[in-house]
Amino acid sequence: MAESLQPATQEFARALRGALPQLRMPPFDERFGSEPRGLFTCADALVVAPSTVDQVSVILSMSHEAGVPVIPFGGGTGLVGGQVSPDLDRPLVVSLHRLRAVRKVDVAASSMTVEAGVTLQEVRTAAAGAGFRFPLSIASKGSCNMGGVMATNAGGVNVLRFGNARDLCLGVEAVLADGSVLDGLNELPKDNSGFDLKHLLIGSEGTLAIITAARIRLFPAARDRATALLTLTGLSAASELCARCKEILPDQLSAFELINRIGLEFLVETGLRRSLPMRETTEWLVLIDVDATQPMELDRKLFDVAESAQDAGLVADGVFAHSESQRKGLWMMRELIPEANSRIGAIASHDISIPIQSIVPFVEAATERLNGIGPFRVNCFGHFGDGNLHYNVFPPAGESRRNYMHLRDRIVGTVHALVREFGGSTAAEHGCGRLKAAELQLHGDATRLATMHSIKRALDPRGIMNPGVIFRLPRMG
Amino acid sequence: MAESLQPATQEFARALRGALPQLRMPPFDERFGSEPRGLFTCADALVVAPSTVDQVSVILSMSHEAGVPVIPFGGGTGLVGGQVSPDLDRPLVVSLHRLRAVRKVDVAASSMTVEAGVTLQEVRTAAAGAGFRFPLSIASKGSCNMGGVMATNAGGVNVLRFGNARDLCLGVEAVLADGSVLDGLNELPKDNSGFDLKHLLIGSEGTLAIITAARIRLFPAARDRATALLTLTGLSAASELCARCKEILPDQLSAFELINRIGLEFLVETGLRRSLPMRETTEWLVLIDVDATQPMELDRKLFDVAESAQDAGLVADGVFAHSESQRKGLWMMRELIPEANSRIGAIASHDISIPIQSIVPFVEAATERLNGIGPFRVNCFGHFGDGNLHYNVFPPAGESRRNYMHLRDRIVGTVHALVREFGGSTAAEHGCGRLKAAELQLHGDATRLATMHSIKRALDPRGIMNPGVIFRLPRMG
Repeated sequence: MAESLQPATQEFARALRGALPQLRMPPFDERFGSEPRGLFTCADALVVAPSTVDQVSVILSMSHEAGVPVIPFGGGTGLVGGQVSPDLDRPLVVSLHRLRAVRKVDVAASSMTVEAGVTLQEVRTAAAGAGFRFPLSIASKGSCNMGGVMATNAGGVNVLRFGNARDLCLGVEAVLADGSVLDGLNELPKDNSGFDLKHLLIGSEGTLAIITAARIRLFPAARDRATALLTLTGLSAASELCARCKEILPDQLSAFELINRIGLEFLVETGLRRSLPMRETTEWLVLIDVDATQPMELDRKLFDVAESAQDAGLVADGVFAHSESQRKGLWMMRELIPEANSRIGAIASHDISIPIQSIVPFVEAATERLNGIGPFRVNCFGHFGDGNLHYNVFPPAGESRRNYMHLRDRIVGTVHALVREFGGSTAAEHGCGRLKAAELQLHGDATRLATMHSIKRALDPRGIMNPGVIFRLPRMG
Repeated sequence: MAESLQPATQEFARALRGALPQLRMPPFDERFGSEPRGLFTCADALVVAPSTVDQVSVILSMSHEAGVPVIPFGGGTGLVGGQVSPDLDRPLVVSLHRLRAVRKVDVAASSMTVEAGVTLQEVRTAAAGAGFRFPLSIASKGSCNMGGVMATNAGGVNVLRFGNARDLCLGVEAVLADGSVLDGLNELPKDNSGFDLKHLLIGSEGTLAIITAARIRLFPAARDRATALLTLTGLSAASELCARCKEILPDQLSAFELINRIGLEFLVETGLRRSLPMRETTEWLVLIDVDATQPMELDRKLFDVAESAQDAGLVADGVFAHSESQRKGLWMMRELIPEANSRIGAIASHDISIPIQSIVPFVEAATERLNGIGPFRVNCFGHFGDGNLHYNVFPPAGESRRNYMHLRDRIVGTVHALVREFGGSTAAEHGCGRLKAAELQLHGDATRLATMHSIKRALDPRGIMNPGVIFRLPRMG
């Protein structure tokens, strides 16, 4: 990162076209210049849309040579500004949407090889079509791309059982900063011949390489499944109930999602739902999913867990899915919460993770400190089972967030400071992106940061790969 | 690796003692100068045995400063010479055996934090004592150390279900080449704040850092378990039977071990067993383990699988464990095979992995090619379920391996060439070490090697960390 970066000039565009006559260069438009939360915008960029790995290789090789900053672009659904830079002078946006092939479904090895531009939902559908299940599930699954899923190590509702994106990945094909192609798609279940580069690239958010394809693990389809929405007597009941579920159904528990009453109220307030599945609710609810590849009376077992939890004073009431459509209804309610949040308009959103035993004291302390700042509505929800919460702060009912945006930095600072006090992470499943790069550099562990810097310098010596993400932005030339 | 390495002189030893008056310096003896297969020896080294991470930090910092090569030493059980260098002039052996603490058992988080010098068996016992299971199991579990388990990404019999060491690791504490301490023990299930350094260090075999502690995942203890030893009608029956087990008991199948009749004959020939569990056997057998955290009639289910496989002409006969002692007997037989191999004395041993659908054609081709070299007895056995075989070549009955050692290189070359033809790995679960460094550099993917070199140079610029392992040895000063 010693040398300065150069804009993607018309001359550079001509050189690219000369080297790759087939390369598409779509016009720059809002799609490439904005992101879902409206925190980052970019006024101008050169956009290229390669359709082969070889094209990506030539593009990076020439960008490396010329010192042109490269922004890898997938589905554009990222929430931390990893796909949009407001600070670079005409960067090169490499959109992977034309890398569209499902290259292989390997039934014997329970794996599938997909290119970067395939959406997560397409992968899930293709897996189901082959009699399998790909368990990664995030709110943006219909539009997010597999390249981005791997680059950001996406999480979602089933991490509890199946892990994050990296745990579901058997190998990647990637193009490094200098254009060289790393073919790691045929990794074997046991192969200790050198460093694990796959895990280094997964979650590096485009700062080391562009992931062009991934080989992912497929799982047997579930043959038994049960779903319940339970109202709890308090937040601490969630911890205890989660521990019970993990103990009684350790191999079956696939989702343990926390919902706050505010989230349900938002669904009605924004018109996304006319009514809710239960007439009365307490402040905290959980949506629980268990499933198994063998029939094992999960409906009864989950009911028993809920009933004994009610006897123990943890659960107030519950709704159980008795059909697929009821199950879909319960999950749809959970999955519409981010959309409701977006319509209400958060002052600040936090993607945090906390050691699970500290969630209750964290939420208590956060409530107290935010009460000292203003009369906010907080929608705290998410993946309780692995300690990952979305802690989103909204203006009081009927008020616009504009009147409160001056408090945003103070709110974020307060919440994140508290997360650190409890030993948590302020960049849990969405990644670091541009949004949290400065904070990471400020508060991250010094040895860890120094090691990351050394690796970045070694693999991307000119600093062209997604500048401003994870690391602070270098100066432009 | 530009600068030359320096021996650990008396002066260097005095300097270490001055900086760390409490540091133990055990005498150099055979323990530190040899390894199990007798392929590598070291004549002289300075040995230090730190008891704290801070001591390790000072040791590496001073070694880095002086350019003294460091050989991390755990249980000494590695099979690829990672712990012994014949080529370094008086290196510094850092033995971790005094880092002995089980720092924490976290029941709520199902995790345990252990220091590098704790043996795998001690970890398994401590897990069981807390009501959990730590599923990693390798032949050397009684003496191998957790530092080495993580540094080499150890595998074993349960990888099929639970993954390799890296999949069981939630975080590591490690000392980098310059002495800085990376504290990654408190990693959260979801944390995307930067590069994943844990996975880079796991499996790097001491070439980037010394792992001083690890936080590992614990699993619920099994409440149901079934074990069967089946004789097969042929090797291709193993593939088909494995696929059936994965399909019918996908979440329960924990081991699918291949055994060759030769291995059983070796047990009798070496006096390790007086008789075998079945009077007659075919050429190939499998030992299958299934278990679950819920009672689910696994005995019956495994029997049904075996019976229908017999009906399909895959299985000839079978023995089922009807008690814990019978189960132990079957597993003891499997676990004594490496000891029997060692007593017979292999001309060449291969730790290879092959895409599972290619195992049959690989074994057929290997048999044919080896028949062209000599009248060998081949004991091919191991972790069929994840494609990892130990393919060990022995002299004919009654003959000494000395008469055949001149063919060793030809045998290894032949087997490894065939592994590459079938898209496999010649360094599967034992690692690369010094044994396979030259081969890796010769046959490894060029981009992968260049990337590994860049990372090595970035994190260990003086090349002091376990020189000769994975990478070729730099010149001594």
